[in-house]
Amino acid sequence: MKSQHPKIKIGFAGFGTVGQGVWKHLKRDRKRLEKRLGVRLELAVASVRDLDRARPVKVPEDRLTTDFMAIARNPELQIVCELMGGTTAARKFTLEALRAGKIVVSANKALLCEYGEEIFTTAREHGGHFFFEASTAGGIPIIKALREGLVANRFSLIYGILNGTCNYILSRMENEGLSFPDLLQQARDLGYVEADESLDIDGVDTAHKAAILSYLAHGRWVSMKEMLVEGIRGITQEDIQQARELGYRIKLLAVITRNLKNGKLFVRVHPTLVPQRLVMAGLAAAYNGVCVQGDVVGTTFYIGHGAGQDATASAVISDIADACLLLKGSVHPLLPDETGPLHEEYSPPCDLATLEEVKTRYYLRLRVKDAPGVLATITGILAAQGISLATVRQREISDTKQASLILITHLSNEKAMAETLQLLGKAKEVLRKPYLLRIADFEE
Amino acid sequence: MKSQHPKIKIGFAGFGTVGQGVWKHLKRDRKRLEKRLGVRLELAVASVRDLDRARPVKVPEDRLTTDFMAIARNPELQIVCELMGGTTAARKFTLEALRAGKIVVSANKALLCEYGEEIFTTAREHGGHFFFEASTAGGIPIIKALREGLVANRFSLIYGILNGTCNYILSRMENEGLSFPDLLQQARDLGYVEADESLDIDGVDTAHKAAILSYLAHGRWVSMKEMLVEGIRGITQEDIQQARELGYRIKLLAVITRNLKNGKLFVRVHPTLVPQRLVMAGLAAAYNGVCVQGDVVGTTFYIGHGAGQDATASAVISDIADACLLLKGSVHPLLPDETGPLHEEYSPPCDLATLEEVKTRYYLRLRVKDAPGVLATITGILAAQGISLATVRQREISDTKQASLILITHLSNEKAMAETLQLLGKAKEVLRKPYLLRIADFEE
Repeated sequence: MKSQHPKIKIGFAGFGTVGQGVWKHLKRDRKRLEKRLGVRLELAVASVRDLDRARPVKVPEDRLTTDFMAIARNPELQIVCELMGGTTAARKFTLEALRAGKIVVSANKALLCEYGEEIFTTAREHGGHFFFEASTAGGIPIIKALREGLVANRFSLIYGILNGTCNYILSRMENEGLSFPDLLQQARDLGYVEADESLDIDGVDTAHKAAILSYLAHGRWVSMKEMLVEGIRGITQEDIQQARELGYRIKLLAVITRNLKNGKLFVRVHPTLVPQRLVMAGLAAAYNGVCVQGDVVGTTFYIGHGAGQDATASAVISDIADACLLLKGSVHPLLPDETGPLHEEYSPPCDLATLEEVKTRYYLRLRVKDAPGVLATITGILAAQGISLATVRQREISDTKQASLILITHLSNEKAMAETLQLLGKAKEVLRKPYLLRIADFEE
Repeated sequence: MKSQHPKIKIGFAGFGTVGQGVWKHLKRDRKRLEKRLGVRLELAVASVRDLDRARPVKVPEDRLTTDFMAIARNPELQIVCELMGGTTAARKFTLEALRAGKIVVSANKALLCEYGEEIFTTAREHGGHFFFEASTAGGIPIIKALREGLVANRFSLIYGILNGTCNYILSRMENEGLSFPDLLQQARDLGYVEADESLDIDGVDTAHKAAILSYLAHGRWVSMKEMLVEGIRGITQEDIQQARELGYRIKLLAVITRNLKNGKLFVRVHPTLVPQRLVMAGLAAAYNGVCVQGDVVGTTFYIGHGAGQDATASAVISDIADACLLLKGSVHPLLPDETGPLHEEYSPPCDLATLEEVKTRYYLRLRVKDAPGVLATITGILAAQGISLATVRQREISDTKQASLILITHLSNEKAMAETLQLLGKAKEVLRKPYLLRIADFEE
């Protein structure tokens, strides 16, 4: 029986936590997968930086190499996993492997966001393929859901919690009343934060994932520069408390909106006041979650572990399984990159919305002089920009002649609010830089 | 360009709510789907019972027929959708179409549960295929997730809310304090209940869907007789209130457990006390939700609309898309039915667990005489079966010399509890039939 099944050799570029996880689970479960896929699988080779380093997952010496580019070029390998991370060596490896017609399976969101177009063009020209289920939301099969399961839909709204570190910090701020700096230090000590911690904390990682979801849903790469991206550094316990009293929890959300009438797309990442009754508000610290609203299916949610060795390995292995079927003759399931932009014939062109068209309600925290007429001045500045208020909460800061002012606006837009922030920052009544959060208006 | 693409003709057996929904969305979105799939799609024919009946979705007269079996046999059709419901005509149609080598797309959970083995055997023997994403949890792409996205996993636990009518009734019992009979009548008036309402209310529909999920996850059909199936008829406001005070909500859950060590499987459907902190407890009335625990990915959740014209159409269309790719040469993505039982080589044989091995905690509501010694008798009966109690709540029923007794047990098993129920039912201190609910112990 088995000898009729084609043998598929898999190489690994990078053999850290994720690479070892994939190797371990593939090895453990090889027979079942082989039967299911009708192939024979060989874990052929893995590249490491240091051959002598001890690793939890044992690999025969003759299957380790330091030369990752040899893996990209090795004609015996049909599937290669790029699990090195970073964008320099990873790009070089990926392009070389695609030029050799291989299927590249990747968990590298930064690479995909920065070089997605180059990667897919190279794949198209040379007959290679690029799979990336593990790049976004870890083990949650959201890429497959968007690409295949929800193929009947156009997506007016996709939002989600895509960074585990931020969700961990915000959940603990809320549950334990600790400060952001203390929790960041704890997250560092536990190894929860990326080496470049700005990737997590300032929303860059979330933005990378948002770009990938947006590409899948709308067939257009949105660059970081075209997004609105804000992180969680500025959030204080006062914000957490105020949000709670107002019926919200604060979550770092990626929000991808498309106006299905005029076709305009916008991608933003920011800490958001989420109504407590929404599924996303209740998401435990360990989870990522994505809410997808399609014009046919309505609202759907996908929740699971967004990172970690095993969850990521689960996603990489599902890509390897799809790659095996592709090697056996499958038509690739609905890769937008390989059929060209999805919407060019049917949908309006996928322009980006302007900041004036991006509308939401806002939460504004100001430190002001505690003196007569201050509130009139502040609300006057807002009114001049056409921003009206739903809620005003003023609290005296004892012994300081200062007050904290929390303002909740009615629906406004990003342009008006940006101008308002500038004007408020210059007003002599305002003693510190104004701090802004968005409020999630969407219904489930 | 287009003329190079193969033309795929689609027929519909049954043209009620779902059939018309699929036709409507396919027609509206045809160009985009054709481009994405690289095919041309033709909505060729639909069978109806009455040609003259007015329908919201308009179809040219020459594309309607009353002869559904002609659709099964028509050699020009490559894909046929069985959307008639029922199991007699639907089975005849499905088997005939499979014998003709067609791809059958179905939303018919009852058919699949009752005749799944015959259907897949027929497909295998004649080169047909049977797709059924719409059969379970409506628009949520859970079939694809289990089959493809989570291919790396074995599943120790799958549980979920799979019947919208029951979730609607239980949510309103909880939120508005209404009784089960009143809400059932309202659901009837709104057309939310199937013609044979036992399918919804007594857990049969949920059991059908549980059988399908269990088959996908474990490669074995579990019949209704092999399951434990209880519906929601017996639930009272007292149960809802008691559950709330104890920190739970009552949901009708399907629970599929597999012991990954000895391979034993068990499928059960029953109203369950779900801890309020769990995602499933918070699920709004309109949603279905499934929690999948895999040995690699950990815990994942899938939530969305479980029924309705559009959500079901979304699932049917995703199957049609996969069917188009299959017709273009794809290897079918991981159909267990077409490769034989999944686990025979690798896993232990998929035996069913005995009732003694199915363990949970229980909620027991008893109406008893309000007299000295009664509690001692009752607890004695439980103790004799090895069942120990975590919580006892006794409440006098005014002017009756009766009391309501709510007992929460520690972990016990179905066999011991069934015997206990019998003994309690015979005890002269117990005035009504004892009522039992299970408690969800699982962690997220």
